[in-house]
Amino acid sequence: MPEDGTETPRTRLVTEGEFAGWRYWPGDAFEVHTGPFYFRAEDDRSTRTAFRVASHHINGGGAVHGGCFMTFADYSLFAIAEAALQGGRGVTISMSGEFVGPAFEGDLIEGSGEITKAGRSLIFVRGTLSRKGEPVYTYSGVIKRISAPHI
Amino acid sequence: MPEDGTETPRTRLVTEGEFAGWRYWPGDAFEVHTGPFYFRAEDDRSTRTAFRVASHHINGGGAVHGGCFMTFADYSLFAIAEAALQGGRGVTISMSGEFVGPAFEGDLIEGSGEITKAGRSLIFVRGTLSRKGEPVYTYSGVIKRISAPHI
Amino acid sequence: MPEDGTETPRTRLVTEGEFAGWRYWPGDAFEVHTGPFYFRAEDDRSTRTAFRVASHHINGGGAVHGGCFMTFADYSLFAIAEAALQGGRGVTISMSGEFVGPAFEGDLIEGSGEITKAGRSLIFVRGTLSRKGEPVYTYSGVIKRISAPHI
Amino acid sequence: MPEDGTETPRTRLVTEGEFAGWRYWPGDAFEVHTGPFYFRAEDDRSTRTAFRVASHHINGGGAVHGGCFMTFADYSLFAIAEAALQGGRGVTISMSGEFVGPAFEGDLIEGSGEITKAGRSLIFVRGTLSRKGEPVYTYSGVIKRISAPHI
Repeated sequence: MPEDGTETPRTRLVTEGEFAGWRYWPGDAFEVHTGPFYFRAEDDRSTRTAFRVASHHINGGGAVHGGCFMTFADYSLFAIAEAALQGGRGVTISMSGEFVGPAFEGDLIEGSGEITKAGRSLIFVRGTLSRKGEPVYTYSGVIKRISAPHI
Repeated sequence: MPEDGTETPRTRLVTEGEFAGWRYWPGDAFEVHTGPFYFRAEDDRSTRTAFRVASHHINGGGAVHGGCFMTFADYSLFAIAEAALQGGRGVTISMSGEFVGPAFEGDLIEGSGEITKAGRSLIFVRGTLSRKGEPVYTYSGVIKRISAPHI
Repeated sequence: MPEDGTETPRTRLVTEGEFAGWRYWPGDAFEVHTGPFYFRAEDDRSTRTAFRVASHHINGGGAVHGGCFMTFADYSLFAIAEAALQGGRGVTISMSGEFVGPAFEGDLIEGSGEITKAGRSLIFVRGTLSRKGEPVYTYSGVIKRISAPHI
Repeated sequence: MPEDGTETPRTRLVTEGEFAGWRYWPGDAFEVHTGPFYFRAEDDRSTRTAFRVASHHINGGGAVHGGCFMTFADYSLFAIAEAALQGGRGVTISMSGEFVGPAFEGDLIEGSGEITKAGRSLIFVRGTLSRKGEPVYTYSGVIKRISAPHI
């Protein structure tokens, strides 16, 4: 629906439910499969991301799987960097993080972060995933701008 | 089925198909959902992990999603550390890695790695995910031994 | 000189020069040799660290050496964690970071950061080194509490 | 002394003492100040690095300072990447690592490692610092090729 300004070729707007007003990337199969994950640009130009923990996000110990947090952090990395990418593509070249607290089914996980440097070839991002206002995963990542779809 | 030695309370043996002879953890919902991922103890006491890239592992650029590699690396972390955990539980406290090459639908991704230190409270692991013998993701992670299921 | 409250067995107060009012650890040979580095507890209970770039901090390209930033970040890690350590000792078990900008001889480098989790055995810290208000190095690290001086 | 082939504009050969036959970069003030650190190309085209722990490398707990290991690892990063840099310059953009064991004054620290990918703009390196054949620090880093001396 490009006519109403709510859609771009790459993102889609959620129109109902808990995440009405948030966006996602429908063309990313792994994110659609592991999510659903959402992002939203705030009035202060910051970006927020969020998801609701479902039963398929849980590990063998009953908490959110580390891979789920890392996948959502990688998603958040691109949500945060989206303006800096200016419509161009990017690939993650490195990412590191610390698991500082658990989360459980039914929890709302919220992501925030910042670009620490947007260079000509590399974009550096740092972020936090939180549950009830307390950090559960802290991370940093580096995105390389690319023109072609793959490195 | 403990009577035939092929099952433990936590792992299950694959008996047919491409990964016959490999094991997995059926009790981990996120890994079952994002995988299937497999591991196998080799005769030389090393551990190998593997998965076949399916359509749900792919990102918006047509390659394996970074979150998929990180999830499989976190899975591999525990496969490599399993003997050192001696039946006890562990949680990942940190993980970092570099995306050094792409992979595509249909590829076989193989994981190898090593324990660099198994201490009383922490286990340090380093590993590599490869495609056709070339690294696609290199990582290191730290596991904390725990007695209870959650930190 | 414990009678005047300005000394503890482990830290010493600077009484003159640019860093008057700041503290350092005189018993750490590597930090004394590579620094001098300083820290100060602020009224808001945050911790600041700082050093002035000298000629011996410079690499072959004319900028501050990455090893200097990492050493000062490791120093900052313990300055930030000092209250949480409650007089106990700790060792760094992992640290990662990104070099997001250069700095040069004569620059003032300032460090800030936060504890993201202080657990019973592990303390997680994240910080930023800045030059003229812009980040030059962002990092995170994990400290393990220990009772004995070495692991 | 370019006439005898043992010197290049950037490296210098050690001709006597414990590290006779090894090289270093005399133009890097921080490395000269914190070292001395050495590197050597082996017949199998791998690169080894080494240093002997002196009193100025020690932290307040009596062991080698983490900043010393990280500085030597950053040094080793460039020693390992030297052939791939083909005479061009590079800067470290990120580095992460784990401290898996202590080392003490008098110890010989040896470094080994490998390039996991040498791309057009980025070089990925992974390495290990060891003491008596056991790892004390494991790390990975990313170098960005640059033409000018600074980013």
